[in-house]
Amino acid sequence: MTASAAPVVVDLKFNPDDVKAALSRAFPGRDVINRADPDQTGRDLAQARYAVVWKSQPDLFARAPNLQAVFSGGAGVDHVLTLPGLPDVPLVRFVDPTLTTRMSEWVVLQCLLHLRQHARYAAQAQRGEWAELPQPEAREITVGVMGLGVLGQDAVRKLKIMGFTVVGWSRRQKTIDGVETYDENGLDAFLARTDMLVGLLPLTAETRGLYDAALFAKLRRGGPLGAPVFINAGRGGSQVEADIVASLRSGVLHGASLDVFSTEPLEADSPLWTLPNTIVTPHAAAASDVNALFRHVEAQIKRHEAGLPFEHLVDRTAGY
Amino acid sequence: MTASAAPVVVDLKFNPDDVKAALSRAFPGRDVINRADPDQTGRDLAQARYAVVWKSQPDLFARAPNLQAVFSGGAGVDHVLTLPGLPDVPLVRFVDPTLTTRMSEWVVLQCLLHLRQHARYAAQAQRGEWAELPQPEAREITVGVMGLGVLGQDAVRKLKIMGFTVVGWSRRQKTIDGVETYDENGLDAFLARTDMLVGLLPLTAETRGLYDAALFAKLRRGGPLGAPVFINAGRGGSQVEADIVASLRSGVLHGASLDVFSTEPLEADSPLWTLPNTIVTPHAAAASDVNALFRHVEAQIKRHEAGLPFEHLVDRTAGY
Repeated sequence: MTASAAPVVVDLKFNPDDVKAALSRAFPGRDVINRADPDQTGRDLAQARYAVVWKSQPDLFARAPNLQAVFSGGAGVDHVLTLPGLPDVPLVRFVDPTLTTRMSEWVVLQCLLHLRQHARYAAQAQRGEWAELPQPEAREITVGVMGLGVLGQDAVRKLKIMGFTVVGWSRRQKTIDGVETYDENGLDAFLARTDMLVGLLPLTAETRGLYDAALFAKLRRGGPLGAPVFINAGRGGSQVEADIVASLRSGVLHGASLDVFSTEPLEADSPLWTLPNTIVTPHAAAASDVNALFRHVEAQIKRHEAGLPFEHLVDRTAGY
Repeated sequence: MTASAAPVVVDLKFNPDDVKAALSRAFPGRDVINRADPDQTGRDLAQARYAVVWKSQPDLFARAPNLQAVFSGGAGVDHVLTLPGLPDVPLVRFVDPTLTTRMSEWVVLQCLLHLRQHARYAAQAQRGEWAELPQPEAREITVGVMGLGVLGQDAVRKLKIMGFTVVGWSRRQKTIDGVETYDENGLDAFLARTDMLVGLLPLTAETRGLYDAALFAKLRRGGPLGAPVFINAGRGGSQVEADIVASLRSGVLHGASLDVFSTEPLEADSPLWTLPNTIVTPHAAAASDVNALFRHVEAQIKRHEAGLPFEHLVDRTAGY
């Protein structure tokens, strides 16, 4: 391996074996310092020009003062923005077709599970009970997607193709062909139309604790499912879990699908695991594939070294 | 109501209240004889020109000898083709966007449930266990759709959009943009590629008992899920249920989703209800919406009376 190309430091709290295996195929011709490798703990980071990070070691930026860019190991960047000593260099989020496809799989699956009353049919099956339930059409259900970045827009497109009526919300107005969208001034109007709320928002000061009892009370009532459904694959910090539990128990919410939690792993004794019509997955909706991550970083470094701007830059003021 | 338009006889073993409610809004200006209405049992059927039928009364065709067309109340026509005394007039299947959308919802839901390992995550949730499972990508899974009529083609399109690799099979070769298709001579090659087999075939002499242990053994093994998945929303008569049970127990099949059964309702003590990784729904994948059925029949009668040919005609020799 030649060290003529500027070195990359990799500081990812992922599965170390996965990272090592992926690195064996990544960054050809470039020196890589893998901080998860015990044999490399003492290496000098002063020459490193690029860092790929996820819940990195706290001394990273003190020891690597010459970075030209920092790459987030995940789609969300709240974990990166709070890293101690984060330098004022371009910060690039992870965008990859694999990750987008997986997130839309999870979102479409959850919307279909609730539409097609999977939990009720599964309960009937346990009793050997053959009974067809009244079945609304997808177009009678309005799915409201909050967060219209790459992930949100892909989910919107696929939910529409499956037949749902779809509306979108983002802080700053976005335009999507064939979809009514709302901005921060239209939140109540958006919620009033929404039967299934899909959360794909980043965690910021504005979104912390956003999904609470007051918000659930503004969702459309009296739709074909009787009450609204809350689906979150954004960040757990945006939701008030006690309010979700209370709203499910009181019937303010008909059901929920949650992949993210305010504390992860979710405590084993959380009532969310076993509430009726509630689906819990362990932050697995769209796992960052580490091979895809390194391909993305390689492509962005190549752009940068050819004099082109980075894509998928994070706006630090907005927090995403 | 004027009787100047040729009368329609409706003989549907559906929910009688649903039929009555839908008829109150259907066939304006046309005399309708509803055989499910006890007040109409004695009515003369000799003038009826059109019949809408599903598991009709056995004397229907003897008492209505002047029919110009028969409309099936469902997408499948095996129940109609065996009706005693079925006259040699055009037989029209039920095709409707609502029915197609619902069937694709069910098919896509089942494929996503198996891809995303819903049953394993649900079992973990019951134990309060936070554990991410290795997750193949959709494109690593080849879904093989048998039956490429209106329903099959819509399912193929939506499965592709969700990211699956999709191949198709039909008795007579069909061409679908961007999808490899096989015909009756290519069945083994089609099965050898297929990780998830989706059955949307009509019940005919050729398809009776088609899905058996010998066929399951020809499906692709060693794919990302370890073993293939069988999904059937066509007709129960096409499957050998003892072989499905044995194949699930032996591991020849990784999982199954079944909406149709050789005897319906499925017996309460069938092992299929509670086998691991097996989803049973009560012939509810794509319920015929009776309002949509009457809209379809009205549109076809209008075509016929304007001198145009019927659409969606059944080929009686092929049996579908």
